[in-house]
Amino acid sequence: MSTPSQAATSYDRLLVLSREAGLLGSVEGLLGWDQETMMPPGGGEHRARQLALIARLKHERLASHDMGALLTACEEEIDTAADTPEAANVRALRHDHDRAVRLPASLVEEIAATASTAQHEWAAARAASDFARFLPWLEKTVDLCRQKAACYGWPEGGEPWDALAEDYEPGCTAAAVSAVFVPLRDRLRALLEEVAGATTRPSGQLDAIELPEAAQMAFCREIAGAIGFDFTRGRLDTSTHPFCGGSHCDDVRLTTRFHSAMVTDALSSTMHEAGHGMYEQGLLYEHVGTPCGESVSLGIHESQSRMWENQVGRSAAFWRWAAPQLKTHFGSATEGIDAHRAYESANRVAPGLIRVEADEATYNMHVMIRFELERALLKGDLPVAGLPEAWNAMYREYLGVEVPDDRRGCLQDIHWSMGALGYFPTYTLGNLYCAQFFEAACGALPGLVEGFAEGRFSPLLDWLRENIHRHGRRYSPAQLCERATGQPLSADPLMRHLEGKFRPLHGI
Amino acid sequence: MSTPSQAATSYDRLLVLSREAGLLGSVEGLLGWDQETMMPPGGGEHRARQLALIARLKHERLASHDMGALLTACEEEIDTAADTPEAANVRALRHDHDRAVRLPASLVEEIAATASTAQHEWAAARAASDFARFLPWLEKTVDLCRQKAACYGWPEGGEPWDALAEDYEPGCTAAAVSAVFVPLRDRLRALLEEVAGATTRPSGQLDAIELPEAAQMAFCREIAGAIGFDFTRGRLDTSTHPFCGGSHCDDVRLTTRFHSAMVTDALSSTMHEAGHGMYEQGLLYEHVGTPCGESVSLGIHESQSRMWENQVGRSAAFWRWAAPQLKTHFGSATEGIDAHRAYESANRVAPGLIRVEADEATYNMHVMIRFELERALLKGDLPVAGLPEAWNAMYREYLGVEVPDDRRGCLQDIHWSMGALGYFPTYTLGNLYCAQFFEAACGALPGLVEGFAEGRFSPLLDWLRENIHRHGRRYSPAQLCERATGQPLSADPLMRHLEGKFRPLHGI
Repeated sequence: MSTPSQAATSYDRLLVLSREAGLLGSVEGLLGWDQETMMPPGGGEHRARQLALIARLKHERLASHDMGALLTACEEEIDTAADTPEAANVRALRHDHDRAVRLPASLVEEIAATASTAQHEWAAARAASDFARFLPWLEKTVDLCRQKAACYGWPEGGEPWDALAEDYEPGCTAAAVSAVFVPLRDRLRALLEEVAGATTRPSGQLDAIELPEAAQMAFCREIAGAIGFDFTRGRLDTSTHPFCGGSHCDDVRLTTRFHSAMVTDALSSTMHEAGHGMYEQGLLYEHVGTPCGESVSLGIHESQSRMWENQVGRSAAFWRWAAPQLKTHFGSATEGIDAHRAYESANRVAPGLIRVEADEATYNMHVMIRFELERALLKGDLPVAGLPEAWNAMYREYLGVEVPDDRRGCLQDIHWSMGALGYFPTYTLGNLYCAQFFEAACGALPGLVEGFAEGRFSPLLDWLRENIHRHGRRYSPAQLCERATGQPLSADPLMRHLEGKFRPLHGI
Repeated sequence: MSTPSQAATSYDRLLVLSREAGLLGSVEGLLGWDQETMMPPGGGEHRARQLALIARLKHERLASHDMGALLTACEEEIDTAADTPEAANVRALRHDHDRAVRLPASLVEEIAATASTAQHEWAAARAASDFARFLPWLEKTVDLCRQKAACYGWPEGGEPWDALAEDYEPGCTAAAVSAVFVPLRDRLRALLEEVAGATTRPSGQLDAIELPEAAQMAFCREIAGAIGFDFTRGRLDTSTHPFCGGSHCDDVRLTTRFHSAMVTDALSSTMHEAGHGMYEQGLLYEHVGTPCGESVSLGIHESQSRMWENQVGRSAAFWRWAAPQLKTHFGSATEGIDAHRAYESANRVAPGLIRVEADEATYNMHVMIRFELERALLKGDLPVAGLPEAWNAMYREYLGVEVPDDRRGCLQDIHWSMGALGYFPTYTLGNLYCAQFFEAACGALPGLVEGFAEGRFSPLLDWLRENIHRHGRRYSPAQLCERATGQPLSADPLMRHLEGKFRPLHGI
């Protein structure tokens, strides 16, 4: 760490340290991507060590005495309340530094090493639907998360979950999430009951057709490029669980996955991850390695992925443009699938077992279940060994489905194996932000949705670049929402969107 | 660097530091592999920064005061002349530390950052056959190499080249290389003249057949696996210039390349890189991150790649086993290619322009040319701008060929763009070691070559594991050679091999 001292002002020196931590973070991102996509199985043990070392080195920089001293100096020299990138960077680094110093380096390293191995074990346990195999790793992970929460602490009246959620959604608490989720759940339930009682159902014809994986990949690549994902600054591969990873705004790695049929699932996954990827690509390289060059929260991140997946990719206008492309990629196999049939296939509603395959109407139920369960795991109200039973009971209660095995139950998601407890609710927050942003964009850009039918997606991307992406962490999620939409976050736009789509589709 | 102080003995603490440097080196390996195989073009600038940071962090550890103090303590506690892994690790780390402290961290970082960008510029310049584009980067690289050589210094009577070669082939000097190369060149010339005058020539029929890339890849993968490359601990991809990279013994990344025809070129590249890869996979994981878990020199590394490429992959016995597999992969396209025809195709001799496509008889001439040129560049006898002209003149003199453009001339190899001057002679040293090791293996294992015809390659791999791989850096290249063959390195086995093969093939 010799370079900072050569720089001029405290702020310059702070950025040198921040950029070094950022570089390490970007290396971590690449190692993680490689682990899920390219690494041969034998590489797992060593990869865990690599990730643990890089995590420790990054944490050392964030938590360093140098960082603390430079922050104090900057806080004297700069008006940290100002609306400038400089002030925002100082505020955000102060937040990160104060949290980092609370975590011992040894715990950071243990968490990173455990996560790497636990992910490997999770993948194997999931493949074999063998919860017992994953149990010791999940127990260790929950224990480490509770240790982490204890180090961070939480406000009076809060709970361990709050301490962890701060890493994903700054300012978010379990109580606040509950206050939104409970009424949302009731309105969703009402909609699902209407839908369940309907006599008209969308056809799933397109998704019943088996299509070769290579052709599905070519189709997905074309759509991802057409909506604006820049392949000169990113790539698309396959992995067990689709994700958006990689290094930084000029090197964004998406993954998707394929089934022999269900092409709209592969496409949704791709458009979802491309939405994340376009947010990353929309961060400004001039700010790389500083908070203004980082995404602000997972909720906001998810608002971007969901927008391209749902508001765009599941719209009737989109399919007027996309349906003719089916023929180009799949030839006669998709004959007879017109825009409306494809639109229907992308919008069937059926309570199911798998979150990432869930339709828009049931999706948030999957999230709420996970939120309740992780909250209980962290409080100690639910022993880890009791997870499968509790999971299955909640699926019965919330969605009315029976979970036949843990592969399609509590082993389906990668998140907990990565130590990411406190993360799931950001998916539903993302849906809420998404619907509200999209209403604002439609208001600002007349003809936006109609443009999708002609393959015009850049007006939406430009609006997102301008209102969301370019700001990085300059504004809080709440501030961003107010600036972009003029309103605080509300569940109304999401419910308007869902009711406005699913009632007509079911003849209601 | 908090962990070392918790360990017990000085040696234990030394290993903790060594392993941390080793982990960083393994991360560097992965970043380098990704850059050449997976990284989108936009990622280049940031990758250079990532590599520079990791190189600096690794160098800081090797050059650290802690490392120096621990080495001094170990040298008091351990008999460093002993034939034990401990003594070998202390000797090798002393060597590395003493060299590292001579290089300023700023120079290490500048070299790494320059190499990353220069490689990118080289690839673009090569594609466009545009030496002028690469010139400023090569000038900067040569300048940095001269600075590096000046930092290291060289023995009385030596030259800058010696200082750099020490990184690749410990103990190697330009004068010693010349002493071997000059007589070797004369004997090779005599053989090439015999061959040029012969009326019989091997048929190149197999390599004239155009074959789909996917089928070539499947064929190459099958052969690589059959000779012993472990795909659970490695992978095979494509890149502009084939290489063996990756992280460590349990995660080895090979690349190869394909032309529409010339399947024996793709196979040779694959077997060559698999040879490197099997050496890496043969290092012991228990020694990972310490000198005993590292390859000893590039010459020894190359002896392994060349053995599988040439002594195995270009043998008549190998093709008795491999020729029937052509049909499996290529169907009727390779009809009429029997074992002898395939053997001939793999062994045509023709002075050519491209080192990596060169036959065994002319290959070393390509190396000698590069050795003379880089030696002159480093001495300052040859200005970088004069390289194309000097290159072309030497190709005329050594191989009697006219270089039509720089793409097939001085831009063909990646090495100089990586800053790897002092590296090329290790290819010919590798050929010499290879022939001598192979003679020893044949002496120790009767029926070895005949076994290839039945697909039995494990006796050779086992011999190499036992005599070469498992030792890592425990012995010097010269000691390894003496232990494995009972003789010091000599050019006789290589000339016996070449004359014994190419005279009969040309009816001499």
